[in-house]
Amino acid sequence: MLTREELNVASLGEPRYDSVLNLSTTEGDGLPDYVPDETRVPLRVSIQPGFESEKDLTFERAGARARLFFDPAKCYAAIVTCGGLCPGLNNVIQSVYSELHYRYGIRKVLGVRYGFQGFDSDRGLEPVEMTPAFVEPIHNFGGSVLGSSRGHVAPELIVETLERWKIDMLFVIGGDGTLRGAHAIAGEALRRGLKISVIGIPKTIDNDILYVYKTFGFDTAVQEACKVLHCAHNEARGAPNCIGLVKVMGRDSGFIASYATLAGNVVNFTLIPEVPFKLEGEGGLLTLLAERIKGRGHAVVVVAEGAGLEHISEGEISYDASGNIQYSQMTKDVGIFLRDKMKSYFEAQKIPATIKYIDPSYIIRSVQAGASDALFCNDLGRAAVHAAMAGKTDMVVGLWYNVLTHVPLAAVVSGKKKVDPASQLWLAVTESTGQPLRFLTEDKAKGSS
Amino acid sequence: MLTREELNVASLGEPRYDSVLNLSTTEGDGLPDYVPDETRVPLRVSIQPGFESEKDLTFERAGARARLFFDPAKCYAAIVTCGGLCPGLNNVIQSVYSELHYRYGIRKVLGVRYGFQGFDSDRGLEPVEMTPAFVEPIHNFGGSVLGSSRGHVAPELIVETLERWKIDMLFVIGGDGTLRGAHAIAGEALRRGLKISVIGIPKTIDNDILYVYKTFGFDTAVQEACKVLHCAHNEARGAPNCIGLVKVMGRDSGFIASYATLAGNVVNFTLIPEVPFKLEGEGGLLTLLAERIKGRGHAVVVVAEGAGLEHISEGEISYDASGNIQYSQMTKDVGIFLRDKMKSYFEAQKIPATIKYIDPSYIIRSVQAGASDALFCNDLGRAAVHAAMAGKTDMVVGLWYNVLTHVPLAAVVSGKKKVDPASQLWLAVTESTGQPLRFLTEDKAKGSS
Amino acid sequence: MLTREELNVASLGEPRYDSVLNLSTTEGDGLPDYVPDETRVPLRVSIQPGFESEKDLTFERAGARARLFFDPAKCYAAIVTCGGLCPGLNNVIQSVYSELHYRYGIRKVLGVRYGFQGFDSDRGLEPVEMTPAFVEPIHNFGGSVLGSSRGHVAPELIVETLERWKIDMLFVIGGDGTLRGAHAIAGEALRRGLKISVIGIPKTIDNDILYVYKTFGFDTAVQEACKVLHCAHNEARGAPNCIGLVKVMGRDSGFIASYATLAGNVVNFTLIPEVPFKLEGEGGLLTLLAERIKGRGHAVVVVAEGAGLEHISEGEISYDASGNIQYSQMTKDVGIFLRDKMKSYFEAQKIPATIKYIDPSYIIRSVQAGASDALFCNDLGRAAVHAAMAGKTDMVVGLWYNVLTHVPLAAVVSGKKKVDPASQLWLAVTESTGQPLRFLTEDKAKGSS
Amino acid sequence: MLTREELNVASLGEPRYDSVLNLSTTEGDGLPDYVPDETRVPLRVSIQPGFESEKDLTFERAGARARLFFDPAKCYAAIVTCGGLCPGLNNVIQSVYSELHYRYGIRKVLGVRYGFQGFDSDRGLEPVEMTPAFVEPIHNFGGSVLGSSRGHVAPELIVETLERWKIDMLFVIGGDGTLRGAHAIAGEALRRGLKISVIGIPKTIDNDILYVYKTFGFDTAVQEACKVLHCAHNEARGAPNCIGLVKVMGRDSGFIASYATLAGNVVNFTLIPEVPFKLEGEGGLLTLLAERIKGRGHAVVVVAEGAGLEHISEGEISYDASGNIQYSQMTKDVGIFLRDKMKSYFEAQKIPATIKYIDPSYIIRSVQAGASDALFCNDLGRAAVHAAMAGKTDMVVGLWYNVLTHVPLAAVVSGKKKVDPASQLWLAVTESTGQPLRFLTEDKAKGSS
Repeated sequence: MLTREELNVASLGEPRYDSVLNLSTTEGDGLPDYVPDETRVPLRVSIQPGFESEKDLTFERAGARARLFFDPAKCYAAIVTCGGLCPGLNNVIQSVYSELHYRYGIRKVLGVRYGFQGFDSDRGLEPVEMTPAFVEPIHNFGGSVLGSSRGHVAPELIVETLERWKIDMLFVIGGDGTLRGAHAIAGEALRRGLKISVIGIPKTIDNDILYVYKTFGFDTAVQEACKVLHCAHNEARGAPNCIGLVKVMGRDSGFIASYATLAGNVVNFTLIPEVPFKLEGEGGLLTLLAERIKGRGHAVVVVAEGAGLEHISEGEISYDASGNIQYSQMTKDVGIFLRDKMKSYFEAQKIPATIKYIDPSYIIRSVQAGASDALFCNDLGRAAVHAAMAGKTDMVVGLWYNVLTHVPLAAVVSGKKKVDPASQLWLAVTESTGQPLRFLTEDKAKGSS
Repeated sequence: MLTREELNVASLGEPRYDSVLNLSTTEGDGLPDYVPDETRVPLRVSIQPGFESEKDLTFERAGARARLFFDPAKCYAAIVTCGGLCPGLNNVIQSVYSELHYRYGIRKVLGVRYGFQGFDSDRGLEPVEMTPAFVEPIHNFGGSVLGSSRGHVAPELIVETLERWKIDMLFVIGGDGTLRGAHAIAGEALRRGLKISVIGIPKTIDNDILYVYKTFGFDTAVQEACKVLHCAHNEARGAPNCIGLVKVMGRDSGFIASYATLAGNVVNFTLIPEVPFKLEGEGGLLTLLAERIKGRGHAVVVVAEGAGLEHISEGEISYDASGNIQYSQMTKDVGIFLRDKMKSYFEAQKIPATIKYIDPSYIIRSVQAGASDALFCNDLGRAAVHAAMAGKTDMVVGLWYNVLTHVPLAAVVSGKKKVDPASQLWLAVTESTGQPLRFLTEDKAKGSS
Repeated sequence: MLTREELNVASLGEPRYDSVLNLSTTEGDGLPDYVPDETRVPLRVSIQPGFESEKDLTFERAGARARLFFDPAKCYAAIVTCGGLCPGLNNVIQSVYSELHYRYGIRKVLGVRYGFQGFDSDRGLEPVEMTPAFVEPIHNFGGSVLGSSRGHVAPELIVETLERWKIDMLFVIGGDGTLRGAHAIAGEALRRGLKISVIGIPKTIDNDILYVYKTFGFDTAVQEACKVLHCAHNEARGAPNCIGLVKVMGRDSGFIASYATLAGNVVNFTLIPEVPFKLEGEGGLLTLLAERIKGRGHAVVVVAEGAGLEHISEGEISYDASGNIQYSQMTKDVGIFLRDKMKSYFEAQKIPATIKYIDPSYIIRSVQAGASDALFCNDLGRAAVHAAMAGKTDMVVGLWYNVLTHVPLAAVVSGKKKVDPASQLWLAVTESTGQPLRFLTEDKAKGSS
Repeated sequence: MLTREELNVASLGEPRYDSVLNLSTTEGDGLPDYVPDETRVPLRVSIQPGFESEKDLTFERAGARARLFFDPAKCYAAIVTCGGLCPGLNNVIQSVYSELHYRYGIRKVLGVRYGFQGFDSDRGLEPVEMTPAFVEPIHNFGGSVLGSSRGHVAPELIVETLERWKIDMLFVIGGDGTLRGAHAIAGEALRRGLKISVIGIPKTIDNDILYVYKTFGFDTAVQEACKVLHCAHNEARGAPNCIGLVKVMGRDSGFIASYATLAGNVVNFTLIPEVPFKLEGEGGLLTLLAERIKGRGHAVVVVAEGAGLEHISEGEISYDASGNIQYSQMTKDVGIFLRDKMKSYFEAQKIPATIKYIDPSYIIRSVQAGASDALFCNDLGRAAVHAAMAGKTDMVVGLWYNVLTHVPLAAVVSGKKKVDPASQLWLAVTESTGQPLRFLTEDKAKGSS
């Protein structure tokens, strides 16, 4: 279990300058206040008797600090986006730039091209020197105006480039792997005695970042996934004995599948990595599906790409440059696997069923951010800048109970957030679909025979 | 200031039956748990030194209870929607019905027609006996499938009708005025010794309900308002010296205007009821607007319908059946007022400006709920049913720091939630627009001269 | 009635250069062909016996010509957008520029700022020298990247500026008034012996351009108007005896109102300028509306802004700089007028009705073009460039029976296209709404009493 | 080449009743007219000298006839939808029903379940007796409310069922295979001396129906495909050397790929069945793609599912119940094939490229119809009913130059409409993408070496 210290945020040193933002330091004078470091957000707000021990676990609250570590007139910043696309990347870039430029008056902000690769001078990817005109329209587009990439670049090389570019603060927008990279960069800078603030902004449409309630782009991804579920529902109802099967993103966590199920209200089976399932036989997915088809004539199934891996042989799994399973490149991913299994099962059962398989793949992540994500991205960008100016480092800006927080990178990368099968969320999913709370797994099935 | 007792929820009596839901009562057994009454959510999670006194102020957490007050096999329920439309009404209706019917097995659920008027037998509005087929498609539509209405109906009459219909639990979906009505109904039932649970589900696109972080439909309304801001921006840039002026809903609170400003990132002046403004002269809106026009050639202004009332003469204000200001029926509301003022000001200044005025009015409230609202409505509906089954009454289901809560109606109707001009929210709005944190008001202006 | 000659397009002179496009001049060789001037599109394709006389009335077909009047290596072009916004303006700008730059290799294309005002050097509006980077993203935005304006600028002044800028071809994107201006410019250039091609691209969301089947932006406007009708329908069904009243654009022609009615399928009364209506008494709108309300409890009414002018007193009508009625600035336009009339009528009749009035105004014209309009705009832009390069002038690019055509400006500005009350279109509208084919007018009503 | 007679529509016999619609038979009296059979629409409106021979080829115009073959008071109708989903199916169903029920007063309209299977009593699929309440909301949904299916059912069996149900007119909504079925049904009825009108309404998002300019749903499909292209563009720009590859529907015809290319304006290579392409070597797709990647760093490729079949070995092609190639079930369809080819090619070339492959599959066909399709569907439905009531049979309702027409089924099923590589359409596509007008094919490549 986490200790109190593990939630403490690292600092480059004692702040040395008064903020230029002209906020108030007096609570209750009717003006917005600076946020003191001492303001904390509890890890667990819903407290039952017996769980008082967790009361001391709190996050530092994000916000403008009264005292700055960097002199705004003299410091330079850089922004980099890494990993796959996510709705809102451009909004975050715009927000970080705008806060740096307009509010703090930072004179130089570099946009690093194509992720960490942009720090590798061998690749010849010169950074963009950002301007108001450059960022003005970008929130109207999906994607990343800076470009992104996957794969490892040595932290030493990155820190050398940062030093050469005289960067004081680096904003790293990326997912799990990227944040590990950011943690290494912060560590390397520290080892070299460089005062470089490294601030992460967690990016993943899978929403699987530990100690972060919701990541940007997730709402938009759910909205897009939800549209696809309605398509699958129309397909399923449009043919006799028809199953609409949808694969959505979610490598380790079934958040998109779960939330889209709840938002769409048309799904009959939701399959996520956190809840294994038995395929055939009593209580198996195919058996339950056949019952549904017999009863209602159609069904909708949504599967997260990381679900059901227990059924896929190792040889068919491929890996990307970051060492993650590369679901998009697998000839037989779980969607195709289930489609084929369903087909042969129904043929064997002599039920003339059709399966309409939809893999929206990149569609749900490359669209423009919706309004609530746009707003959230703005907030994250501003909070990231406040943290950097105050000399915080080796941390991400998170969201916890609707409050923006600072979370140490070490804590964030210590694992992945998952859908808890004992949570109200999973309960709600099973209430919405009508599926059992737990599928029988192969072992349990054996046990029960 | 609120006392601890004022956040305690009323109960019809000691629960008498075991729940039929088959959840777990053992924490940590890997199964979803019933929520005990003792689980509490703090009023203020972000704690600064010196504010420990508020630590005792907590809300009861919503969720399924292990023990029920009503026998599911024998109780009847009714649902009513009141006041103006709001995205998600049908989703809430569907969710309440589904939880009652599918999870608890309630045998009869009445849908009351056209708000509280549906209880008045003189009007001949027979309630609908709801069925799965009736609710199945309704989440695909904006509006309320039951119909709604404004205006007062005597609580005595309503309670008599409830008694005649043998209703054990009433779900009231409505805004501030409606919740006052629900509070009176709960009181009247109590006076008569009737065991009727009255559960409110707060509905307002203005998001102005006290002790409720966010109401359903608000996200969708912001998304729609945001689209209109982009239209106004296109108009403003499309003509020389052009001002795009948009009026949005927000009678007492400027939440839609503020959030849409942050989401859209194209607004130059945001006017809300909570922040009065001086019109003319130094530091006045029109002067600042003229500076913007001279500098950039275009501007976007968004005004909440309740803003600037200090500038409108009493004779031009009209009132609806609930006694609220009826902004939609005013010949000269604040939008028209500002449009005309701007026009004459720029004419007087000999600046050949054009003003494109957009009043989206009902457009932002009658659309279908977006995905995040759809999901939220499902949650609210389920929580409302759990509360009623457990015998809670005279309360609403709220959201506080992402946790569903029970809040006594008395507390909820004791005031209106407003945008705090000292909050990080308003600070963010002014950072986005570039407008001053406070406009000069007429008085201050006088004082400063 | 139109003569054959009136559909002949003017030319600056005999073409002098071979085209640089490398199309084929041999029909049937499997390659796209140049379009000869002799290819014609009939005015009326649906021929009944007895209407043979119209067989000779044909339009010149648009398309790339084998011979050019201008030497691409030496000529300059300018683009101007005038009047109100319309979805697709930026797409047309982009298409004209791309065809000029990439296909014909024109070296200089000026973007005139803010409509005809941009030709007036007193205003200091320097034209933009357009580049591929300038036009690359613009089709993703509503509005006009060049800006637009209304009002008169002397043709002499415009031609002088064109001469000073050495412009050989001017693309004028605008509505009725603008095209009159373009006609005058072409005439003035001719008088001065200047070889300047003036090519109009008709722009009006009202779709009221004579001899043009459909103008760009119209489809998108109908789609947006249709969304508003669904909002009004939701509102109307959401309250007892409720009327959703929507005002849409359409000064002289009811095309938007008619098409949106057919697309939305929720309207009960469609009011357009071409079909006058009686308000009160037997067969009057209010009487029919009251019958509908009594029968069904709700109604949706859509009114074009130019409808019912016969009921509005002259003093309440205001005019813009182009001399058009300025509907957007009228305190009491037909929407407000009807809202108030309905209100007082139902009060007088003691029917407790509510009226929800929606005026989407600029919302339906400032959005981005939909896919079909985007495609159409591309076609129009290319055809306009082909016409100019071939030395055509004083004409617009139109669409007639899905074929792009050349239409002389004199013919285009000789009147306005209107909804024919005897057409299959109006018949379909009345079938969809259930309203009478003709309303009683005041006179008829008097006559019939 | 087609003869004049082949465009004549079959009739069940001389009309016997006056129409009940009360239209006018006098041209010019200001009222909508019945359409006489003699009104014709030419096959080719754009006439060049030398093509006079085609002047006699004309279609019969659709519309209400003054005289009816069936007595509205005594006839029954049935509607069936077959084949894959298409946006607008429900709108057509609603329109046919509404015209039959409200305008002609037909007393019984059966909705056949799940395509032609619904005529097979062995399957136990009872038809729905349609009502106003049944059709009222259906235009708000994608899919088909009646259900659909593929595969053969014997015409004899269908006609027997029609006779048993006493159906006088059958409306068949389906694509190429279905219309062949309808033609057989009409023939079988004729052989039995049954007076059953069989009216087809062509349905295909591929838009590949001969003698029909545009089929319903096509606009909506293009709009959805266009969204996906923008996603692919965002992906392509978001990573170094990245190719966004999109597969869209289009078995025999590349209309969706071509129109979406023109509407989206972000594609660099459009691959359609009508234009074969060489893969590798000089002038091959991969070579051109590598040049684009080297020059610009990203590319977007769209491929119709039926394109490039010449590169796929026969063993990997699968067929559906209708005998069509079942693209959706192929393990290695052209999208996957190209993705893999690109991957290995760039690896071999040592260019570190990434390929983002998107297959939207059913997404673009199962959405709700957009506004222009909604309107078009209404028109088609009405025209189909008018044709049936007048005793026409063995025909479809088509669109030709914006005019609704009657086209004999025999002519319609005599082939498939394709993108003409010599047309202005394909020229425009290549201008938009910058690709060569013709790719080198393997043979040409050999020849040129």
